[in-house]
Amino acid sequence: MAMIILFGIFIRYDSESSPYWVEYKRDHNISSDAENDFYFRYPSFQDVHVMIFVGFGFLMTFLKRYSFGAVGFNFLIAAFGIQWALLMQGWFHSLDYSDGKIKIGVENLINADFCVASCLIAYGAVLGKVSPVQLMVLTLFGITLFAVEEYIILELLHARDAGGSMVIHTFGAYYGLSISWMLYRRNLDQSSRLQGSVYHSDVFAMIGTLFLWMFWPSFNSAIANHGDGQHRAAINTYLALASTVLTAMAISSLFQKHGKLDMVHIQNSTLAGGVAVGTAAEFMLMPYGSLIVGFCCGIISTMGYIYLSPFMEKHLKIQDTCGIHNLHAMPGVIGGIVGAITAAAATEPVYGSEGLIKTFGFEDHFEHRTPAEQGGYQAAGMCVALCFGIGGGIIVGCILRLPIWGDPADDNCFNDEVYWEVRDKSLQNIYP
Amino acid sequence: MAMIILFGIFIRYDSESSPYWVEYKRDHNISSDAENDFYFRYPSFQDVHVMIFVGFGFLMTFLKRYSFGAVGFNFLIAAFGIQWALLMQGWFHSLDYSDGKIKIGVENLINADFCVASCLIAYGAVLGKVSPVQLMVLTLFGITLFAVEEYIILELLHARDAGGSMVIHTFGAYYGLSISWMLYRRNLDQSSRLQGSVYHSDVFAMIGTLFLWMFWPSFNSAIANHGDGQHRAAINTYLALASTVLTAMAISSLFQKHGKLDMVHIQNSTLAGGVAVGTAAEFMLMPYGSLIVGFCCGIISTMGYIYLSPFMEKHLKIQDTCGIHNLHAMPGVIGGIVGAITAAAATEPVYGSEGLIKTFGFEDHFEHRTPAEQGGYQAAGMCVALCFGIGGGIIVGCILRLPIWGDPADDNCFNDEVYWEVRDKSLQNIYP
Amino acid sequence: MAMIILFGIFIRYDSESSPYWVEYKRDHNISSDAENDFYFRYPSFQDVHVMIFVGFGFLMTFLKRYSFGAVGFNFLIAAFGIQWALLMQGWFHSLDYSDGKIKIGVENLINADFCVASCLIAYGAVLGKVSPVQLMVLTLFGITLFAVEEYIILELLHARDAGGSMVIHTFGAYYGLSISWMLYRRNLDQSSRLQGSVYHSDVFAMIGTLFLWMFWPSFNSAIANHGDGQHRAAINTYLALASTVLTAMAISSLFQKHGKLDMVHIQNSTLAGGVAVGTAAEFMLMPYGSLIVGFCCGIISTMGYIYLSPFMEKHLKIQDTCGIHNLHAMPGVIGGIVGAITAAAATEPVYGSEGLIKTFGFEDHFEHRTPAEQGGYQAAGMCVALCFGIGGGIIVGCILRLPIWGDPADDNCFNDEVYWEVRDKSLQNIYP
Repeated sequence: MAMIILFGIFIRYDSESSPYWVEYKRDHNISSDAENDFYFRYPSFQDVHVMIFVGFGFLMTFLKRYSFGAVGFNFLIAAFGIQWALLMQGWFHSLDYSDGKIKIGVENLINADFCVASCLIAYGAVLGKVSPVQLMVLTLFGITLFAVEEYIILELLHARDAGGSMVIHTFGAYYGLSISWMLYRRNLDQSSRLQGSVYHSDVFAMIGTLFLWMFWPSFNSAIANHGDGQHRAAINTYLALASTVLTAMAISSLFQKHGKLDMVHIQNSTLAGGVAVGTAAEFMLMPYGSLIVGFCCGIISTMGYIYLSPFMEKHLKIQDTCGIHNLHAMPGVIGGIVGAITAAAATEPVYGSEGLIKTFGFEDHFEHRTPAEQGGYQAAGMCVALCFGIGGGIIVGCILRLPIWGDPADDNCFNDEVYWEVRDKSLQNIYP
Repeated sequence: MAMIILFGIFIRYDSESSPYWVEYKRDHNISSDAENDFYFRYPSFQDVHVMIFVGFGFLMTFLKRYSFGAVGFNFLIAAFGIQWALLMQGWFHSLDYSDGKIKIGVENLINADFCVASCLIAYGAVLGKVSPVQLMVLTLFGITLFAVEEYIILELLHARDAGGSMVIHTFGAYYGLSISWMLYRRNLDQSSRLQGSVYHSDVFAMIGTLFLWMFWPSFNSAIANHGDGQHRAAINTYLALASTVLTAMAISSLFQKHGKLDMVHIQNSTLAGGVAVGTAAEFMLMPYGSLIVGFCCGIISTMGYIYLSPFMEKHLKIQDTCGIHNLHAMPGVIGGIVGAITAAAATEPVYGSEGLIKTFGFEDHFEHRTPAEQGGYQAAGMCVALCFGIGGGIIVGCILRLPIWGDPADDNCFNDEVYWEVRDKSLQNIYP
Repeated sequence: MAMIILFGIFIRYDSESSPYWVEYKRDHNISSDAENDFYFRYPSFQDVHVMIFVGFGFLMTFLKRYSFGAVGFNFLIAAFGIQWALLMQGWFHSLDYSDGKIKIGVENLINADFCVASCLIAYGAVLGKVSPVQLMVLTLFGITLFAVEEYIILELLHARDAGGSMVIHTFGAYYGLSISWMLYRRNLDQSSRLQGSVYHSDVFAMIGTLFLWMFWPSFNSAIANHGDGQHRAAINTYLALASTVLTAMAISSLFQKHGKLDMVHIQNSTLAGGVAVGTAAEFMLMPYGSLIVGFCCGIISTMGYIYLSPFMEKHLKIQDTCGIHNLHAMPGVIGGIVGAITAAAATEPVYGSEGLIKTFGFEDHFEHRTPAEQGGYQAAGMCVALCFGIGGGIIVGCILRLPIWGDPADDNCFNDEVYWEVRDKSLQNIYP
């Protein structure tokens, strides 16, 4: 209800979705390429939408008894988050100073989906260990922190981050990991019977993996520059992802006993390339550059699942249910670094003089910035994302430790029966 | 085979998908914005297509032993229905009087999908209790009634209904409910062992829910006015749906014992906002208006599942397998009313003089209509949809009561083994 | 790693995805409709992408214990194949002679997906009987053969094949069948306990079926001529597929004992119409023509599953796990023939003089070709596809018979435990 009041006060249609303004602009010969923009952006928006709801939702269904929670709470967080994100991001990006209203259009919807993605990543770290109310709190603060962090990185530092390696993935992953660290459960092994997957829950998770994988080119290109920027972002992401699949499978097979493949790696590590190519997707990374990024991430991410996750759980007291450190945190940081290097190495013969200005936004206040400086600002953006993620996560983690949120007992984590009406009593026998 | 003959006699490509006419028009300087129209409408068409086949199909897989029937018969009805709809709707909308042929293009495909949606909604009420032959009869008459009803509402009354709250949802739901009423089975509790879901069938149903939810903005905007109308329809639907998810979850948790969530509500009530915002989606409903509509529908729909459905089954003798009364009928009627009010309240300062004409189609014969009158005609359209739904459903229900259609016995409803070769004999033990 | 080196040497962005060239072209007034092309082709690309990864992947999950292999190895082949295809197809189609580099854009991505489709079809014949290494070899040679065959058919013979009935389906199916023939296993019945489906694996397979079915209009129209060609291809495919569903269901019910439907037919035969309408999709096949094609294919494909597949396994020693002979081979050949006839019957009153030139590409070296001649070249293209498929399959089959590839034992085919870490030990009891 609070949302309705806030929307009533602040949110209006933008000039492209309001007939009065469309007419006004035509009559006054104000050019308007944004109308076409709707048609150019809308298919990407739908692809991103599928990634958020089906992709993230089903990716997390792999646990044997937590599929309802995975897909259901993902749905809840996302639906709540997009409304809150429209307000928070709108405040920073779409405020019309003439009347104090936030004017929304299709790009705001894409950005709201992006914003929510960071909270869904964080959910991956605490999956099965928190209550829905805790998730709402996590989302409320996560979205707010995201909006501030994004404003600093994209507007103040003027770093570029089309696919959100820094803004979305690095921030979201460290936010979730910090919360998970604060909520460390010493006796989580009491729920060990409920950890791990059953056969068909792994197949459900592959639905999520594939929809994330397929639509990632749309994710990374959704808000890239119209024209060649968007085109390039799609190609780079496609190539990085294809390359990651091969290395993830190879490493999974090489490092497992008996050379068998592990579904956990196939479900997650195959996506690492898309994360890592996010920042540099619209730059002239070159096709082989994308392949190299994907290649490295496939190795690092799979190795992370095999060696780093058990280490983190044992020694750093970070219980990371979905392994987001391997899928989002490390590839996100790599993506930020790749972006900084690619930006610093940009030259006029490669981009063209105008392409350089357009790609990096060397306009208005930033017209004297050089590519080398831009590389520095990209690196600074990376640090901001890390600070917001870790700092914000620790604070929100403290709040979530208060004993008022109704979180599940240690021996009842990863169990849908705590929050859901599960009528299928035969399940007890099927999945012991 | 009859379909081939009818298509042979009546159906041709429209002037945009025929090279001869494209050339002719260019040579004679006949302007043609419809070619671009293909590219603007096609992505929406595919989204709607996914809703019809995957969305409706998987939404109904929740029953423990009727997943084949849900997705398979949904496929059958839809594939049959779209052919019949091209003929029936084409007859009313796309007939070329010069040569007596129906000229089809991508908009006809979208409309055929819409038309089929009403029959799939009706299928929800009788799911598991009818034979495939009965479903074909239901579809045959349903499509025919739809085409007439749509013609009366959209052409004669000139009501607007972009997302089909009245034309599709109200009509389809009352059509199905009336049939279900006519086919009341006193001894349906003999199949009670087969009612309800198993764990993974509920996860399958979530695939349907999510694809319906995500693509609903495309559904409501698919045939809206090009430009700001389509843009606004997408935004309004997106907001209404987001709002519904929150209220549905809250109500589900509040009214269940132990505060547990119920998958039935998550699967269905979360979609009610999309239904209710259908008619008014392209109007200036304002973002907060959409949220309010979604908010109310989330409450009404979830309460309907908890209180109204058991009441209807016990006292009104309406056995509604999927609860379409809560998901389509009530929100559809609300949508019609919201549409009528929004239309009646339209003013020139909000829409612009030209926007008013374009949005409500105050052109040609209707140029002297005022918004207040339009509101009246919208309400009249609502009544027509109700009459056709209830009246048509009673007549078709009588036909389906004839003992010639091979419907399942009372103790064998909701059982795939009646119509499908089910080889998995171990199932008997797994799902008792 | 080899891929990175090859991409480093050969692959660059095309002039539409490189800012330098976009600028250069604008400055030199070189017209460029390809930028818009990105926006027109990209939604189709994503639809095709979904078909390749989710469609093919899930279609093959029907086996009770081979769902990981189905969706996982499909993912592996496709991700490897698209990289190799960019190189191989690029070599023939997108080589820039001025600098010896292959310039890639969104159309190359679509073509790479198409190319991979042929190998995934071939995978259907050997599903469960080969090792991942064998699949990589199958793909490596399959893509290479495809690129040569496609060059001969489309460039040298100048046959048209928008939906790839010949180039993709006929080639891919006979390639896979020949390999399966070479790898004949006398004692495959030792794995009979693992053949067939369980209840939920059949529902998973329906995900694949539906996504293939829904997006097939995008598949057949993805590289068709811009404008009316693409529009027509979508309509024809939509109609053919709708018609196939009805006949496949009718035949399935008529020819089974007790008139029960068989999920195998619903999963596969319903798609045959899309294959058969591939070549002629952009021609003036007329709506009723599409229905007739779909009607025939529905009958032939379903009958094939009932009578031909058992015959082929018993007498021709071809073990065809997914029945690709019924879904791709026969409909592919029919599609080639329909294409040849439709091309030969093309007349100027139907196409318009310019439409004829545009549709069949009677330009440059081919400007004196008549429709009748074109029909002959279409038929020749069909033969080339058959020769490459059968010949290539036999050679690659010989290579795959070498005892170095680690293929599974006869009593362990169709078993995920050979190549996957399957933790769900309770499965042994559930699916005996």
